[in-house]
Amino acid sequence: MKKNGRIEIPRKTIYRLSIYLRCLARLRENGIGTVSSEALAKAAGVKPTQLRKDLAYFGTFGTRGLGYEVVELSQKISEELGTSRLQPVILVGVGHLGLALLSYRGFEKEGFEIVAAFDAEPRRKRDKETKQTIYGMGELSAFAKKQNIKMAILTVPAIAAQEVANQLVNAGVTGILNFSPIVLSVPEEVMVNNVNLAIELENLSYFTQE
Amino acid sequence: MKKNGRIEIPRKTIYRLSIYLRCLARLRENGIGTVSSEALAKAAGVKPTQLRKDLAYFGTFGTRGLGYEVVELSQKISEELGTSRLQPVILVGVGHLGLALLSYRGFEKEGFEIVAAFDAEPRRKRDKETKQTIYGMGELSAFAKKQNIKMAILTVPAIAAQEVANQLVNAGVTGILNFSPIVLSVPEEVMVNNVNLAIELENLSYFTQE
Repeated sequence: MKKNGRIEIPRKTIYRLSIYLRCLARLRENGIGTVSSEALAKAAGVKPTQLRKDLAYFGTFGTRGLGYEVVELSQKISEELGTSRLQPVILVGVGHLGLALLSYRGFEKEGFEIVAAFDAEPRRKRDKETKQTIYGMGELSAFAKKQNIKMAILTVPAIAAQEVANQLVNAGVTGILNFSPIVLSVPEEVMVNNVNLAIELENLSYFTQE
Repeated sequence: MKKNGRIEIPRKTIYRLSIYLRCLARLRENGIGTVSSEALAKAAGVKPTQLRKDLAYFGTFGTRGLGYEVVELSQKISEELGTSRLQPVILVGVGHLGLALLSYRGFEKEGFEIVAAFDAEPRRKRDKETKQTIYGMGELSAFAKKQNIKMAILTVPAIAAQEVANQLVNAGVTGILNFSPIVLSVPEEVMVNNVNLAIELENLSYFTQE
């Protein structure tokens, strides 16, 4: 995937940047000001050469013998990932999993705010109240365009997923975190990350057989 | 990872078997009895040669000109994955995400039942009632051994994750679905699948920047 006017960073590097960011956050919490590439690489579970290569993509180099400034490197990675400011995200499909994710606090801590939810049955009685308003599907497009929403979490049943994905793409969303167990067809400029919890369990299941 | 006395199937093949299983389930729902390798491969988003190679690992071949029997192939894959019977799973860490997963019905449909939950504060007031009993951490080991639990979902904070993982391994768990944002150290015979929702969002975030 091309990034307008920027060097294209491999997808696996982007994932590792997220890992480095978390390791750096723990160092910060422990009051540590600088870290060697060896120590940071070890904490992240990668080789030091890999770490240095990953950071070199956006021109960050440690000082020989001193390593990296923890705060500075965190900020650089956050900026690169686009999470240095709180990003608005919408969630579509407020079933059990969707409802759960709406109240999951882990997102906000990492720079994402679920600002609204959408569902085919917005008024249906649910297990608990949500902080976010639940809108009908007809309101999705106008909302996303007005608020300039680029990211969505998709937690609708498999049968509805492709149609909803089309709606999201038409509304200008370019990143979809898909929990529905189907392969979505989207234009090339749209990125889909799939999370299928049942498949992860099934995969473990294979390996835990005696 | 070696499987005692069985042919070692690559991990990516195991993931694809899960995808095939879901495609077959949809065919069944639509009353379709046989499917060609071309049609099944297309539904799963892989090449027909890949599909045939994956199924050949456990000796399944379609009949030339007729393709695969949908029901028969589903059963074979389920048996291979170890999901032909309902498998007991425990969940450790009943915070927002853990609570959500306890009521997520998607697991049972796929052959997994969360039979019990464990938390450092089992009596703490939570947003909703759970079907499963929430036990204290001290009861984990005896429960897992007695019920012969092999799989666990880990939704504790990062700071507690390694210690809890050690407890799980000592209790005989060999498959961990880890939602904590750290790299767990486990013995070679234990499989960890990591799901980090914040990292998935962060990764999307990079690609949605303008």
